[in-house]
Amino acid sequence: MTDSTKAKAVVLLSGGLDSATTLAIAKDRQFDCYALSIDYGQRHTAELDAARRIADAMNAAGHKIITVDLTAFGGSALTDASIAVPTASENTGIPITYVPARNTIMLSLALAWSETLQCRDLFTGVNAVDYSGYPDCRPEFIRAFEAMANLATKAAIEGDTLTIHAPLIDLPKKDIILTGLALGVDYNLTVSCYQADAAGRACGVCDACHIRRKGFTDAGVADQTRYRSEPGT
Amino acid sequence: MTDSTKAKAVVLLSGGLDSATTLAIAKDRQFDCYALSIDYGQRHTAELDAARRIADAMNAAGHKIITVDLTAFGGSALTDASIAVPTASENTGIPITYVPARNTIMLSLALAWSETLQCRDLFTGVNAVDYSGYPDCRPEFIRAFEAMANLATKAAIEGDTLTIHAPLIDLPKKDIILTGLALGVDYNLTVSCYQADAAGRACGVCDACHIRRKGFTDAGVADQTRYRSEPGT
Repeated sequence: MTDSTKAKAVVLLSGGLDSATTLAIAKDRQFDCYALSIDYGQRHTAELDAARRIADAMNAAGHKIITVDLTAFGGSALTDASIAVPTASENTGIPITYVPARNTIMLSLALAWSETLQCRDLFTGVNAVDYSGYPDCRPEFIRAFEAMANLATKAAIEGDTLTIHAPLIDLPKKDIILTGLALGVDYNLTVSCYQADAAGRACGVCDACHIRRKGFTDAGVADQTRYRSEPGT
Repeated sequence: MTDSTKAKAVVLLSGGLDSATTLAIAKDRQFDCYALSIDYGQRHTAELDAARRIADAMNAAGHKIITVDLTAFGGSALTDASIAVPTASENTGIPITYVPARNTIMLSLALAWSETLQCRDLFTGVNAVDYSGYPDCRPEFIRAFEAMANLATKAAIEGDTLTIHAPLIDLPKKDIILTGLALGVDYNLTVSCYQADAAGRACGVCDACHIRRKGFTDAGVADQTRYRSEPGT
């Protein structure tokens, strides 16, 4: 629900663990949060279903899902069905799950909504620790996007400054989970797996599953993720 | 058609006069051109029909039309049917035809394609003369986007430098038209009007029509634009 006494923020919400935590942080910082999810042709819709549940459970002031078909460009295991999703053990260099310009496109769409909402704050759950190979999860990318955004809009010309918040950018998964739990995030609503089934059950073997499970282990918290089969099998 | 001896470029092609000229310039600079059009929910599809004709007539190596529904955000006469398209005489400050973050979003999508094509050059027909009120048509915006793009991608990390070419940015419409004619552009294929009808006939009274007609007059070239009625009536 909208609270006119609070400043507004647009929060990118994928439906995963990181973005749910980011939404909780934005709420904790007293923003009235507008969640934005992008249907870019990812392999499954379980993540977007999760985004809907999270936005609802966390009382987002608004939630939009925008469709932009990045499978038209391909170039990633997440947007080209002919490229297999790698398991953790295959991971060297920039992962094949990197989607060309994905964060640039998502932040651009968030920028559009921030301008029509007349809001000056934008939150993203990018993380440079777990996905160290992703160019668009690095602090220098976020800073450059912010500088560009502050020249791109009517609001910028009129003197409003947009701040891009990336509160998780240097946190290990363990700390993200502990932060979220302290803020009341229900991680059972989130889906991290790159190839979850329609019911949102995780594969247990992809990079995203591996990083998530290790995060719960490191945090000393029971992993209640629903797996299709036993993890690692 | 693809020519493997040439470097590739992605060219943003709206279907208007400026982007058709930009495509001609990119071809003249010996690039193998991949045209990208964005269906963002603009008021009419005549412009996208024009883009198809132009890409075909100018032998683009490829042409994609990507849909991203910016009417979900609104905030512009071009993406919110409840906001009237202004006539030239009403134009003060930043025009209501400015679409929040449109060029940022279009360039971001072009960036995605440039990465999967493995190309290092991207052309846009933005112009800071006719649309001096549009924040995302200014040279400083283009430079900031280029700086961000050179941190955003796997290609950037691997040492490839992307150049964003905005060859029309400081040209008056007259000079754009003379440049295009010298390069063989058939402006009868292009649609500039903000509210063209399904057959591509222009209204004759909106900003875009006004600027286009003045350009032909200043260039001393007959304006062969098809109007729905006599211009200005």
